[in-house]
Amino acid sequence: MKSMIAGRAGPAPEAGREPRGAAIAKPYLLFVADRAKSAYTKTAEGVRAWAPDDCTGQWRLSPDAIDLGLPDLAPAEAHAAGARSLLIGIAPIGGQLPDEWVACLLDALEAGLDIVSGLHMRLSEHPVVGAAARRLGRQLHDVRHSDRAFPIASGVRRTGKRLLTVGTDCALGKKYTALAIARALQARGVPAHFRATGQTGIMIAGEGVAIDAVVADFVAGAAETLSPDSAPGHWDVVEGQGAIFHPAYAGVTMGLLHGSQPDALVLCHDPSRHEIGGFPGFPIRPLAETMQTYLSLARVTNPDPRFVGISLNSSSMTEADAHALAARLQAEHGLPVMDPMRFGVDAVVDRMLA
Amino acid sequence: MKSMIAGRAGPAPEAGREPRGAAIAKPYLLFVADRAKSAYTKTAEGVRAWAPDDCTGQWRLSPDAIDLGLPDLAPAEAHAAGARSLLIGIAPIGGQLPDEWVACLLDALEAGLDIVSGLHMRLSEHPVVGAAARRLGRQLHDVRHSDRAFPIASGVRRTGKRLLTVGTDCALGKKYTALAIARALQARGVPAHFRATGQTGIMIAGEGVAIDAVVADFVAGAAETLSPDSAPGHWDVVEGQGAIFHPAYAGVTMGLLHGSQPDALVLCHDPSRHEIGGFPGFPIRPLAETMQTYLSLARVTNPDPRFVGISLNSSSMTEADAHALAARLQAEHGLPVMDPMRFGVDAVVDRMLA
Repeated sequence: MKSMIAGRAGPAPEAGREPRGAAIAKPYLLFVADRAKSAYTKTAEGVRAWAPDDCTGQWRLSPDAIDLGLPDLAPAEAHAAGARSLLIGIAPIGGQLPDEWVACLLDALEAGLDIVSGLHMRLSEHPVVGAAARRLGRQLHDVRHSDRAFPIASGVRRTGKRLLTVGTDCALGKKYTALAIARALQARGVPAHFRATGQTGIMIAGEGVAIDAVVADFVAGAAETLSPDSAPGHWDVVEGQGAIFHPAYAGVTMGLLHGSQPDALVLCHDPSRHEIGGFPGFPIRPLAETMQTYLSLARVTNPDPRFVGISLNSSSMTEADAHALAARLQAEHGLPVMDPMRFGVDAVVDRMLA
Repeated sequence: MKSMIAGRAGPAPEAGREPRGAAIAKPYLLFVADRAKSAYTKTAEGVRAWAPDDCTGQWRLSPDAIDLGLPDLAPAEAHAAGARSLLIGIAPIGGQLPDEWVACLLDALEAGLDIVSGLHMRLSEHPVVGAAARRLGRQLHDVRHSDRAFPIASGVRRTGKRLLTVGTDCALGKKYTALAIARALQARGVPAHFRATGQTGIMIAGEGVAIDAVVADFVAGAAETLSPDSAPGHWDVVEGQGAIFHPAYAGVTMGLLHGSQPDALVLCHDPSRHEIGGFPGFPIRPLAETMQTYLSLARVTNPDPRFVGISLNSSSMTEADAHALAARLQAEHGLPVMDPMRFGVDAVVDRMLA
């Protein structure tokens, strides 16, 4: 840890694996196999919702599979229509590649498509798929993994502005909030980038860093790399990960917080949760304490971070209850409160730009 | 990050690499090549100082090389005298294997010795050394790296007691403090283990986890694995890493803090430092604020952590000044204050066991 030597020490990237995190070739053919809509199809749904212009078609192996409202295309048809990558839009249980998908992936490679995968296993290490990609010169983007070399963080301030979405827990809207804010900024003509730190975010953006897959020593350095120097007035809107009081993932959250050097933070919260998801006995701490802790730790690398809003995931509540809660929290914390899926993000963007 | 699937997703361990973190075979032949005493020989000196009974001899290639006060032995002589591993005791600049050492390592393997290395490069991936180890059935312990599969942290409390050394910066005595406390406990008949989290510590203990080399998602889980359930009254004394206000490494510190679930903490501090080493402009925060922050974050996984002492690295001060500073800090913080290299650790151990 005392070393300043840059880079991840690990196996050298091999042919057929993307070592430098270069942008993914778009648009996509979304592969949903034979899977009906469920929690396991959220990747496909997220890419469809947030990157509709990047979706050429869907490839369904069964009429019972989820319909994303895209043209049904086989790989060769999709390639002819402009698609450049097959995106595996579903998460099989266990994260391994089902045997019956191997022929599908080979079809896609033969048709001229790269493949984008969020599987736990690396396609580049699959004996058949990896070899075919190398033979055909196609890229395999294993977005759950990180094979890039990152520097140790320097802590040096960068030009431009940064917002980081942070949370009281995992999986409650940090990605959607960041996407919604980046889009709202762009719609107002403010130069802005969404910076992806998780697999679905990377698929939507076409680039990014799976920050939780980086070797621990390099997490803050990877976050610095993710939002480089930019023009004054430009905003990088960084997708947060984990939670600062999370018993398993707080270290990831900390490294991302320090490396992002956020000028602005948005706290994401699901009011229906009282414990950390999957960790019974670990309470969600009060919002004020949570924000104070984030600010205190963020000051290590930014002298003046501030919260500009609270983003609720109010999907468990009626619209009326959500509005009432938002009004109460707004009065309590003196911050704009929104649900990006329900109320829009204008109040938060106003506060960011104020 | 939302996945509960255990294990590091990475390349499968290969033959000749130790995949499970099994204990290193001792005792050691310490290889110092032709290097005179310097900052680069600290590994050899640390192992010599803290594990003297595990050192069969030294292998020096020049009369100008550092003399550790051990018998000068070639690999075959050392093996005959009982040595089981060659330990590379010096850190070459850049972390690569100098070409002129390759023949030395082959000699050691041929003589029946495993090799323990803290180099940045993996010996197991060196074409000549890796192949020889596989052919001869020897183990190569690349202790800077981690190829073990760790679970996601559970946060579940474990039996037995734990102390974690934490710091205001890197490289100021967290390992030495932990070693000294573990030895003092053992000397009093209290069952205790030193738990190593860095390369020199692993070489001294013969086992451990290079915590900063673990994929970020699994750091807290690796720390849980490092100090498993133990008997009531048993102490695991865990070597800390990084610092909670460090702009590059705080995420590692956080994961180790959460996974260690410490009942007791010792703050390690070098009073001559006013900035984080290597990070100009990043101040060392006041001790009281630092301890309050560690405690607040430690409470995520332990309801009642407490500081039991402050450990000074007073090597820059006279003995008299060090005693005066210790007395002042003791009064200010109400904690025993020691320098493990100068004053002993009894007062801290008394407080631990109180």
